[in-house]
Amino acid sequence: MQTQGAGSGAGQGVIAIDWGSSRLRAWLIDADGTIRDRRASDHGAIGLPAARFDAVLAETVGDWAAARPAAPLLACGMVGARGAWVEAPYVDLPAGVDAIRDRLVAVPTSLGRPLSIVGGLRTREPDVLRGEETQALGTGLSDGLLCMPGTHAKWLRLRGGVVDAFGTWFTGELYELLGSHGSLAKAFGETAPLDESAFDAGVARALEPDADASWLHVLFTFRSRVVGQGSPGAAERSRLSGWLLGTELRQALAGPFGAPDADRGLPLVLVADPRLAGLYERTLPAVREALEPALRERLPAAFVRADADCAARGLYRIATGA
Amino acid sequence: MQTQGAGSGAGQGVIAIDWGSSRLRAWLIDADGTIRDRRASDHGAIGLPAARFDAVLAETVGDWAAARPAAPLLACGMVGARGAWVEAPYVDLPAGVDAIRDRLVAVPTSLGRPLSIVGGLRTREPDVLRGEETQALGTGLSDGLLCMPGTHAKWLRLRGGVVDAFGTWFTGELYELLGSHGSLAKAFGETAPLDESAFDAGVARALEPDADASWLHVLFTFRSRVVGQGSPGAAERSRLSGWLLGTELRQALAGPFGAPDADRGLPLVLVADPRLAGLYERTLPAVREALEPALRERLPAAFVRADADCAARGLYRIATGA
Repeated sequence: MQTQGAGSGAGQGVIAIDWGSSRLRAWLIDADGTIRDRRASDHGAIGLPAARFDAVLAETVGDWAAARPAAPLLACGMVGARGAWVEAPYVDLPAGVDAIRDRLVAVPTSLGRPLSIVGGLRTREPDVLRGEETQALGTGLSDGLLCMPGTHAKWLRLRGGVVDAFGTWFTGELYELLGSHGSLAKAFGETAPLDESAFDAGVARALEPDADASWLHVLFTFRSRVVGQGSPGAAERSRLSGWLLGTELRQALAGPFGAPDADRGLPLVLVADPRLAGLYERTLPAVREALEPALRERLPAAFVRADADCAARGLYRIATGA
Repeated sequence: MQTQGAGSGAGQGVIAIDWGSSRLRAWLIDADGTIRDRRASDHGAIGLPAARFDAVLAETVGDWAAARPAAPLLACGMVGARGAWVEAPYVDLPAGVDAIRDRLVAVPTSLGRPLSIVGGLRTREPDVLRGEETQALGTGLSDGLLCMPGTHAKWLRLRGGVVDAFGTWFTGELYELLGSHGSLAKAFGETAPLDESAFDAGVARALEPDADASWLHVLFTFRSRVVGQGSPGAAERSRLSGWLLGTELRQALAGPFGAPDADRGLPLVLVADPRLAGLYERTLPAVREALEPALRERLPAAFVRADADCAARGLYRIATGA
């Protein structure tokens, strides 16, 4: 199932697809890398029957494929997970454009050519991701620390243009689980707009010296503050959000691959939708202040927001070797 | 609503009820403290409409109440939570039998006398509990550290016969949430018998020096070990259980009220059903070994299991002042 020469037809450009768990985004890219057109759909890869993938692909990019019969089709993300369309094996670290291109898996389609699927990455720990490797390579950075929040927040480190370390934080899913089921959800009540002051208080709690040493106890305090002190549920929901984001940023930045030993001013790049990006940017200064001085001095004071099309640019690089 | 003299009719003994979230247990206790009869039902206090409490009480202990018309009715647990039958305010620490008796709240019943409800306890943090205070006082201990696992694991410290500190760990609920919803539940698959070796590995992981410092990342590894290394879902479910129990025991025992400064050989008492008690007893030796020597030396090597009727004995003490 290995494919050769995904880039062989790049004279007509590339049809690029970031096919994630819940969402699909597609780009028509010219041979010179210019993004000509964009589309998105809610036909995510999770829960889609295997037999439906080809039809969704055709519905989404069939006209592009007909107009450019030699343009390669390339996809990254959960489309390559076990139980999705076809499994694209994980690639071990370190992994850059070349290593990933060597491991593409091709699946036949009704569009007159196969779809090449980018494999995810795996660490020895193990840790896994699918799709973020392509976004990271699409930032065009050679060296940097990338933060990619979502259901599972991914932190990747790029060195010399290859991903050499990454880790996953369970932040988004834990927030969703606690806010949707069980005793915290009941205490929180209905979803409400963010309470910024409670969010900031949650961040501050995550930065207290004992925060990690009692985390399994702290989780209960978001309930006990409601039933024991009458704190509004909406404030506690926001406080939980701040506490989780503060915990993630501190753990990721202070962790083994958070702040490379020798690098000063390594860019800190954020790949996120505007709402999440705003929350992470709000959280960073307090976290940075709480880090040890030697660590803090190596980190920039602010995130750089990545281009929203970095997945497209990564797929173009993998397809063309550009 | 304060009631006086819940113990005034104790010549006919006490009708005692531990009315928890999901379960109700009742005891008919003679004047001398002998337990004469026991009953249990699944009519827990959570989700029971306020109008139904009196009927459930009458169904459960109506014949005892008719046979002993002067015996006081006393209940502890979530029956006194806001939104249950009638709210019994939290009592602040330190709290022993006398402080709790002074704050009983009486609610009229169809059984010819009121039901006196024991208030829960509250710390300044805040932390809250309802029911465990009565079990703790029913152990008859003057000094000890009590571990009460469940949906929310409570750790209480008794000094001179009063509860002077406690804390809640979110262990049981987090295990349930992660195992029932979301990406870990999906990776775990169907519930299976405990994998003891994976459970022990989870305990060991919780005792590694970086465990707390990366907890929000470790949560994801129970999934990534399945999808990245092919570990069986059932093993990962058991590993999660061990990791959570190991985390709770270490945090509780090393925390601010876990190991009183001056006391050596303070009893470590476990109030739990046999299945949970077995898991906690399995976990303790490794946790104890991982503690700092000064802390370890102050802790006994094993739990003492509390009497299964300690709630009844606590209610009897509160009712009678015995």
